[in-house]
Amino acid sequence: MAKTDVAYEILVDRLAERGVDIEKVKERLKNQKIETPSWGYADSGTRFGPYKQAGSAVTIQEKIADAAQVHKYTGIAPTVAVHVLWDFPNGLADCETLADYAKSLGVAIGSVNPNVFQDRDYAFGSITNENPAVRAKAVDHILYCIEIAKKLGSNVLSLWFADGTDYPGQGDFRRRKHYAEECLRTVYDAMPAGMRMLIEYKPFEPAFYHTDFADWGMSYCFATKLGPEAHVLVDLGHHFPGQNIEHIVAFLIDEGRLGGFHFNNHKYADDDLTAGSINPYELFLIYNEIVKAEENPNPNPPIAFMVDQAHITKAKIDAMIQTIMQIQTAYAKAMCVNRERLLEAQLSNDVVTAELCLQEAFATDVEPLLRRVREEMGLDPNPLEAFRASGYWDKVSRERGIRSGAGLGA
Amino acid sequence: MAKTDVAYEILVDRLAERGVDIEKVKERLKNQKIETPSWGYADSGTRFGPYKQAGSAVTIQEKIADAAQVHKYTGIAPTVAVHVLWDFPNGLADCETLADYAKSLGVAIGSVNPNVFQDRDYAFGSITNENPAVRAKAVDHILYCIEIAKKLGSNVLSLWFADGTDYPGQGDFRRRKHYAEECLRTVYDAMPAGMRMLIEYKPFEPAFYHTDFADWGMSYCFATKLGPEAHVLVDLGHHFPGQNIEHIVAFLIDEGRLGGFHFNNHKYADDDLTAGSINPYELFLIYNEIVKAEENPNPNPPIAFMVDQAHITKAKIDAMIQTIMQIQTAYAKAMCVNRERLLEAQLSNDVVTAELCLQEAFATDVEPLLRRVREEMGLDPNPLEAFRASGYWDKVSRERGIRSGAGLGA
Amino acid sequence: MAKTDVAYEILVDRLAERGVDIEKVKERLKNQKIETPSWGYADSGTRFGPYKQAGSAVTIQEKIADAAQVHKYTGIAPTVAVHVLWDFPNGLADCETLADYAKSLGVAIGSVNPNVFQDRDYAFGSITNENPAVRAKAVDHILYCIEIAKKLGSNVLSLWFADGTDYPGQGDFRRRKHYAEECLRTVYDAMPAGMRMLIEYKPFEPAFYHTDFADWGMSYCFATKLGPEAHVLVDLGHHFPGQNIEHIVAFLIDEGRLGGFHFNNHKYADDDLTAGSINPYELFLIYNEIVKAEENPNPNPPIAFMVDQAHITKAKIDAMIQTIMQIQTAYAKAMCVNRERLLEAQLSNDVVTAELCLQEAFATDVEPLLRRVREEMGLDPNPLEAFRASGYWDKVSRERGIRSGAGLGA
Amino acid sequence: MAKTDVAYEILVDRLAERGVDIEKVKERLKNQKIETPSWGYADSGTRFGPYKQAGSAVTIQEKIADAAQVHKYTGIAPTVAVHVLWDFPNGLADCETLADYAKSLGVAIGSVNPNVFQDRDYAFGSITNENPAVRAKAVDHILYCIEIAKKLGSNVLSLWFADGTDYPGQGDFRRRKHYAEECLRTVYDAMPAGMRMLIEYKPFEPAFYHTDFADWGMSYCFATKLGPEAHVLVDLGHHFPGQNIEHIVAFLIDEGRLGGFHFNNHKYADDDLTAGSINPYELFLIYNEIVKAEENPNPNPPIAFMVDQAHITKAKIDAMIQTIMQIQTAYAKAMCVNRERLLEAQLSNDVVTAELCLQEAFATDVEPLLRRVREEMGLDPNPLEAFRASGYWDKVSRERGIRSGAGLGA
Repeated sequence: MAKTDVAYEILVDRLAERGVDIEKVKERLKNQKIETPSWGYADSGTRFGPYKQAGSAVTIQEKIADAAQVHKYTGIAPTVAVHVLWDFPNGLADCETLADYAKSLGVAIGSVNPNVFQDRDYAFGSITNENPAVRAKAVDHILYCIEIAKKLGSNVLSLWFADGTDYPGQGDFRRRKHYAEECLRTVYDAMPAGMRMLIEYKPFEPAFYHTDFADWGMSYCFATKLGPEAHVLVDLGHHFPGQNIEHIVAFLIDEGRLGGFHFNNHKYADDDLTAGSINPYELFLIYNEIVKAEENPNPNPPIAFMVDQAHITKAKIDAMIQTIMQIQTAYAKAMCVNRERLLEAQLSNDVVTAELCLQEAFATDVEPLLRRVREEMGLDPNPLEAFRASGYWDKVSRERGIRSGAGLGA
Repeated sequence: MAKTDVAYEILVDRLAERGVDIEKVKERLKNQKIETPSWGYADSGTRFGPYKQAGSAVTIQEKIADAAQVHKYTGIAPTVAVHVLWDFPNGLADCETLADYAKSLGVAIGSVNPNVFQDRDYAFGSITNENPAVRAKAVDHILYCIEIAKKLGSNVLSLWFADGTDYPGQGDFRRRKHYAEECLRTVYDAMPAGMRMLIEYKPFEPAFYHTDFADWGMSYCFATKLGPEAHVLVDLGHHFPGQNIEHIVAFLIDEGRLGGFHFNNHKYADDDLTAGSINPYELFLIYNEIVKAEENPNPNPPIAFMVDQAHITKAKIDAMIQTIMQIQTAYAKAMCVNRERLLEAQLSNDVVTAELCLQEAFATDVEPLLRRVREEMGLDPNPLEAFRASGYWDKVSRERGIRSGAGLGA
Repeated sequence: MAKTDVAYEILVDRLAERGVDIEKVKERLKNQKIETPSWGYADSGTRFGPYKQAGSAVTIQEKIADAAQVHKYTGIAPTVAVHVLWDFPNGLADCETLADYAKSLGVAIGSVNPNVFQDRDYAFGSITNENPAVRAKAVDHILYCIEIAKKLGSNVLSLWFADGTDYPGQGDFRRRKHYAEECLRTVYDAMPAGMRMLIEYKPFEPAFYHTDFADWGMSYCFATKLGPEAHVLVDLGHHFPGQNIEHIVAFLIDEGRLGGFHFNNHKYADDDLTAGSINPYELFLIYNEIVKAEENPNPNPPIAFMVDQAHITKAKIDAMIQTIMQIQTAYAKAMCVNRERLLEAQLSNDVVTAELCLQEAFATDVEPLLRRVREEMGLDPNPLEAFRASGYWDKVSRERGIRSGAGLGA
Repeated sequence: MAKTDVAYEILVDRLAERGVDIEKVKERLKNQKIETPSWGYADSGTRFGPYKQAGSAVTIQEKIADAAQVHKYTGIAPTVAVHVLWDFPNGLADCETLADYAKSLGVAIGSVNPNVFQDRDYAFGSITNENPAVRAKAVDHILYCIEIAKKLGSNVLSLWFADGTDYPGQGDFRRRKHYAEECLRTVYDAMPAGMRMLIEYKPFEPAFYHTDFADWGMSYCFATKLGPEAHVLVDLGHHFPGQNIEHIVAFLIDEGRLGGFHFNNHKYADDDLTAGSINPYELFLIYNEIVKAEENPNPNPPIAFMVDQAHITKAKIDAMIQTIMQIQTAYAKAMCVNRERLLEAQLSNDVVTAELCLQEAFATDVEPLLRRVREEMGLDPNPLEAFRASGYWDKVSRERGIRSGAGLGA
């Protein structure tokens, strides 16, 4: 038996001892789906500069092509989130053939993301702007995004508002809240049946005194008022250091309002690093809640698992594959928990044993399992190495070179 | 004209220019009411030791007597929050004559605070404990507190739960949430008409991995499910550094769910320092929202303004008077804002002017106004100096000495 | 007597009671000097966009002209920090007549700031780059800045390094430290007599895993190794929330290594808001240490008081005048402390009284004093209103319009 | 071949591919030494109560006996840190036979920890107290600890000062610094040859405005002034969230001033949770620096690896064994890094590959290796299970019951 097979068999036995049925785990791993963002293939930057890379995608076609590579090698990244302002410079016309183009590359269009922050008109807010004309402009843009979503066959409208203020006194919290409620109501009512609205939150940046959608509680409050198709979007980087994200995730699931994730990682602020790079155990603990939700009754709608990262130091596609693999690993490990032993330990306040159930799962080397899953999916067991060996990146970085585009690293 | 009168007249003129009617301001200042906590007069400590002071109150009678001193000199601290476990060692019997005793000293009993954290049974949670017997014990204690409240004529039940876990895996977030909902429902339904429930939140300590009532969103969620008499209690120290508290305050007011405050200040964690000691401008900005709520229609119920502080370095009564004066000052300053000019600046995005309206109000020397208000209330214009000159503290610290009692510094 | 005169006289008396000689205070206020940064007059932005303003300065001449306005109205901002990359596109040639130009407008060139972060070559570090050619390029640029400084008559070389890494493993801490030491040594040794090197620190951004000059301790360590002319630069926004900056300031003064400040304010991260906008009491407490250092023997060199702010919501010159006035106010208030009473309270552990000495000084309305000082300096008593009334901004925003330039909001 | 042997062989091969010589790794793991603290076996608590456990040690004999159990099963915890105030109620007399007693149980006395914070005299500081008598008392206690250390054969004096202030104005930073320097000088000069002084730092708690030894920079500064035998003690919980501890560790090693560690973990403040419980990757990254230091020339003295934890929810000895195993695991994984590949990736700015070298090592299942090491050391391959099966805890918790003692949970 080959060494990798031996390692796999050892793992199978070990998991069986924990009451984990490896066939079911494999099944679930094969069905995992993570959406990558079109802007994750384009240049990005910090406020100190964009640091452009040779090979970064500029057109939506390039972005989709790059995303298709990620899916080609990982098998679990079948959709691409699009960003209306950056991806469709010519508007609806750009969408006509896009779904077909994506399909031809083996992927599909996922969530649609409006942009109501980059235009100078939004310097003092979009849907919370004091100026009714600006609010109307923002609403119009989002309504237009709904049209684009329809055209693209997307049913997820993913909203992030950069709205906020920099200085005390600059805005009136409650008046701005009323504006937001009014505008969101218009948008919500315009959504076709089957479409879901995700409302993101963020405590600060680019606004540095207050943000109109500052935390999950605010997004939750807006969502519950709107109706059953409005949910909360959890971006892992949009929390204060130490804030217990897995607890928020569990709470939202229990309330039936967890709409989706923006995966990334942070050490300080909204650093937008690749998933699992700073605290992989936290990612595991978040997936532990997802796995529990999958295995237990709860009122939550389907969750949109999406990546949102904007590092400047890694090669774009490498980084995206690495992130997908990290998320896949977290999911796999979270399924390796001995649930029965954990429950028993919890009920008897044996804290050490309860914790060890999670630590044991996290420490499990799931590589043999993931390799097997990939092989059974017809993929190379090591997606990153396979992609690197393909020469795709060398080719596009040579062909594309360093260019300017629309986006954060424009 | 005496110098102080001149200073007052100059202030009157200046405020008039800002459209502020000083007579109305004085009226509101005279009606301000802040509740001090019985435990604020007792010894407290850090986990490294209690650092007892000579003179700290031990019995509820001593605590009320000390609180009465604070009211005697400030005129705006007419009620005392009581803590059932520490204040009523003999149970309901202790309450019989307490209301009369308090009345005889010029004060009244305010909110009633259960304690479901100090008993060893609660080491793994109270209303979120896996053990139904412990949950029942916790609920019974709170129901008993409702009885005490009835006896004392109090209509505010103020709930803080130390419940949480120290390690990943120790508890199940959603199961614990269900326990909490069930227990709170029982308590809520047992409240007599006219009683309000305040639900506090806190991100960490004494639990260091997760807290079952971690943020305002969770308390809000629990409260809205319970009914119209459940509200959120905002303790200023129970936030992450940077978290915009005045925004949360405004948001809750707009939702009609701001039940009350625990005033104190912090630089790092739940430091429980005296109000306004670290960032007095933040206290002003919070009061700015309260003043705006008073002057504009909103769905919020009456707010319970309460102090909760637990420093170990200041003389207890001095510190309480200082805190009351800081809060009074913040309220006074918040009424000195030129509202018309502020609105105009906000509408025209003149951020500098908008901010200056607040900075101008904050920079206003309201001492002459506060002195005048106190004089008109028949008080000494300087409460702290007057109290110190009274010899009360020397007397009690001599008489009481250093003793042991029930509480955080027991 | 005019009302303002009365207010001034009341203040004089009050300060006299505190043992404060108002004539000396006025003298010190007249001698206060704060440097404004050339880039503070240019467009800036967040990573989500630059949000350009009509009227923002683009050329160094415009920046100096704008800075001259700030000095014209405040009287205490006589120098302008220059940023070599953005301000001298044509190199040394640009400097030839600049000192004269500045002089003709009533100001002078202050600190010289190299830029070793914007060029793509520095994506993986400047003086800590693994590539010796990049390190040499960075050192060469700084040596060139020394030449520029000589030409401009500046004797302050102000160094900020964006160097750091985004991911664990990306760099080797100790190897990078050695590179930094080597490069700084070359630069230090090239400084002419009388020139001082300021070494800034920052915990994160734009690097999100580690920063090579992460905290004051690292800058201090580098400085002490270099020699007596290397000092630490404290940017108020470059600290973790809660970090006690005034303590660090006092510590550095005591070690003789506080080189200067970058004034601004932050609520969350390096928000670069105008000074005193979030916690004005903290600014006062920092000035309290400066005032104490001025009044007591210590080994510290002259301190460079500089502004570094990069907000996007305020009109540029208004914001700079507002910041200067906030700093001036903090300085004035810090001189209003009753030092004798404070010392006595400290020695007797009377914490309430000790704190009240600072609170009393902070609460002092120093407006009458500042107006008097400005009048005696031949200035308008309200610099901001006077500038606004001058029509300068309307004129330049009309003439300049919205343009592109070099800098953070290029 | 048994399954565990197969797993071990697979690991050997895998590490060989990374250039890791497993025999050397085993050698180093067998020589690892971690000191456990006597107070880690006693009751502890939060400021809300002590939550005593049946079985917690009270006497120093019990503590040493418990520590001996940890060493008996892990084989790498041969010394016990002692806390003078709590462990030696009768002073030097208590020490007479202690070394022999410890020896008889297979362990030895490690670092000696003075306590200059629990006595009421230290409410306003110990070596930074304004009162010279209190400073002298504190110094005397530390000198007495040196005597105890001599008697016990210990050569590590481990100093933590709770000194600080709660309110602005309460103390004078620089005056307090001078007191500290003076007192530390006296202590340093009294140390016998071969003794080392470790100076701990902590940003806050129990002092909530400032701490006299607030960060590594301050401890470093004090240490360098004292002389070559003074070093910095890094307690993992004494940092702001996000602060890069591994960078500080590397910096101190490079300066030759890293004296030792207090291992634990935190999510928010100084939570004192067991090692690796919140972010095990961070613990690995810290050990990565230690391993690099072991393998490369550097000026650092021997490092004291010590545990300091104070959880209230886990069984004491279980928790200590768990912590030791976590630290052992981190060390083992840090030795599994492919150093050659890492260096190459760093030099070529291949960030993904560089990071993967660390992620690969962290993901390595080192359980087979650790089991083998333990077996070769004559230990049970699973220390925790073996200890639990021994019945020791049942016995002592039955015999000892719940008692009162000296310490944080007295």
